[in-house]
Order: sequence, then C-alpha cells, then structure tokens
Amino acid sequence: MPTAAVLIADGTEEMEFTITYDTLVRGGVACRSLYVPDPSSTETLAVAPAFAKCSRGVRIMYDATLESEVRASVVMSQCAIECVNLKSNTIFDAFIIPGGAKGADTLSKSATVQRLVQEHLEAGKMVGMICAGSLTALTAKLPRQELTSHPSVKADLEAHFNYSEDPVVISGKLITSRGPGTTFPFALTLLSLLCGEDKRAEVQAPMIFPDGTPF
Amino acid sequence: MPTAAVLIADGTEEMEFTITYDTLVRGGVACRSLYVPDPSSTETLAVAPAFAKCSRGVRIMYDATLESEVRASVVMSQCAIECVNLKSNTIFDAFIIPGGAKGADTLSKSATVQRLVQEHLEAGKMVGMICAGSLTALTAKLPRQELTSHPSVKADLEAHFNYSEDPVVISGKLITSRGPGTTFPFALTLLSLLCGEDKRAEVQAPMIFPDGTPF
Repeated sequence: MPTAAVLIADGTEEMEFTITYDTLVRGGVACRSLYVPDPSSTETLAVAPAFAKCSRGVRIMYDATLESEVRASVVMSQCAIECVNLKSNTIFDAFIIPGGAKGADTLSKSATVQRLVQEHLEAGKMVGMICAGSLTALTAKLPRQELTSHPSVKADLEAHFNYSEDPVVISGKLITSRGPGTTFPFALTLLSLLCGEDKRAEVQAPMIFPDGTPF
Repeated sequence: MPTAAVLIADGTEEMEFTITYDTLVRGGVACRSLYVPDPSSTETLAVAPAFAKCSRGVRIMYDATLESEVRASVVMSQCAIECVNLKSNTIFDAFIIPGGAKGADTLSKSATVQRLVQEHLEAGKMVGMICAGSLTALTAKLPRQELTSHPSVKADLEAHFNYSEDPVVISGKLITSRGPGTTFPFALTLLSLLCGEDKRAEVQAPMIFPDGTPF
C-alpha cells in the first residue's frame, strides 16, 4: 500500500487538504496528516491543540505533529538531542504540502519540511505542492525546473523557476498545482502516479464530475 | 450576513462538507457545523467526541450538536421536556445536508433534521442536499419535484421525484447535487442564491478552476 503524508498547519486551505487526503484514501493510499505548528505561536507543543484551524475556520484533527513523526521514526540513540539531528527515516511515497497563505507560510519556512522535501526527492519519492504551498520549492532550494502555484505567489517564484500556468505541472517527481479549483486534478494526478491510471479511473468515476470537466 | 448550517455526522463525505463550508465562508456567509450522532452508537452525548469521523478518515470538529443548537434557540419554559417539543427557532438562510453513505443515512433518518428541512422550506429558506444527502427529500416527505443525487441512491428517489442527472438542480428553494465532483458548482450556486452573482464571481475567480471548467 503506498503511503502519503499530507501536511497541515493553522491557516491551511481546508479544501486543498481534504480533497487530496480523501482522493488518495479512496485509491488505497495510507495517508498521514502531519501538523506543523506556527513558530510564532505562544502555545508550546505540550498544550497545542490536536487540531489545525484551517483558513476558513474548519478545524481538522491531525494524526501527529511532523516533529513527533520524525522523532518516532529515527533510531533512538542515547541522546535525544543528537537523535533529532540524525537524517530522518520519515520517507513516504508522496509528501504533500497544501496551500492557504498562512498555512503555506508556516510549512514553507519549517526547516524540517524543507529537509524532508529534499530527502524525498533524493530518495526518488514524490513531492506535491499546491497553491501557496509551492513556495516550499523556493525555501527548500530546489533547482530551476517547471512549476506552478497560486497566482498570488507567482512573483516570488518566477525568477527562480520556469513558471507555468498549467493546472497541474509534473516535473520529474515534483508535482505542483494552483488552487482549490485545481485540487481534484492535482490529487487524481498524484493517485495515477502512485497507483496507476486504472486506479485513478476507478476513483474518479463515482465522484460524478460534470460533463465537460477538463480532466 | 446570511447564515448557513452545514450538517455533519460520522461518515459524512468530508470533501462535500468542506468545499461547501469553505466556499460559503469565502462569500461572507456565517456557517455553523452541526453534528447529528449515529443513533445506533453506544456513546452517549455526554461522552461523544467533539468531532465527526468522516467517510475517508478526516476528523472534523463541529461547532455544536444539532440538538443542542435547537435547544439553545427555543425560548426555555419551565419544563425542558416541553421545550424540545416546541417548534424550533433554529432557522438559517440555508440548511445543508452533505452526502457520504453512512453520514447521509444518519442525517436523513433524524426526525430533527426532517422537521428542520420542512420548517426551512415553509419559512422560504434554502435547503441544500448533495450526493446521498438527497435521501432526506424522501424521509422529510417533500412533495414530488425535480431533484438529483448520487447515482447510488437514484433507485430510492426516482419513483417519488422527477429525477434529473444535471450537476445541480434548483427546484424553488430546494437545491440538490450529485457528488464530490459537483460540490464546487453546488456550493457556488448556493452562494449566488444567498449573496448574488457578483459575490459568486468574486469567490470563484481566485479558486483558479482549469480553463474549460463547465461552471
């Protein structure tokens, strides 16, 4: 069973999170929702709520914090402080960063997220970024390649990448997309790359897209 | 500011819930997520979790239970038992029932939901049903009219209604739709009816639907 991490933060766009997570689960992908706290928040992890307050107020409970997932996955040495500096074994078949301005700001600025993006690509695994989530391509210092994003962050990206306005851009293992309105084709593209075209078709049909839908 | 209740239960389709809620919030509609517990659950309300476990595992925290919302809205008399039999004042500008087989089963069989559907329509307010949520048109004994639903429940509905396969059907104040793939046009239709075409256009543009999207 393929695995996917779908990241979430306060301010994540809840449609982009939910459509991606749900579509992959429908295709048999084992999904984990992993939370990254806002570093400027005064709440400590010990009292952080077990949910993300998303961009339009939907509150979604997450499976684990990203940090706890990374800590749990490394081979524990004598010293916990050393441990968190070890290279992570938190590798999924797809590592996905949704948008929402505030959520994407938190996710893209997280050193752990940046490192895991690099490690996933080095390991030949897929990385998905949608909407303002594509800012992570910049912060993780990915090499110049084709990508897309929400238009609101185009100006931040176009000097560093070959900017496209296609709904979904596949650049090797980096899959990018634009906004809530492109999340279905984004999620279905991830599913076809993880599980094949037949699985995508099996999942897409009962969703009942209107006639003429261009994906 | 228009108001909407978006119902939720265990097994609700999380994309249908989230797209509808988020789209309406983007348009300035004050949304409430109201939970209806599964009556066959052994959990009592006192220990029920404050979230719905949706159809593909996304756990969404709700604002209130539907019953508590109804109780809070009635003028309390001496006797709480009489109170809950009073006609509810829980009237929103839109009362919305998402799908997901198990969630729609719970919602459509709830006597409170059935009564509120009737009361909203009697008050000239809008009622939205999508996917298997359209079963509530049957259980609330709505008169024969045009509607649609997910194809999986078409057989339950077509003898009682003028069944349509359009993505979104407007029948007076009853708005029905088909599945996750039609939730964007469903939510945008609700928004245009609540807030006007200009507001719909303002909300739709930054969602960045692919060129050729048929709504």
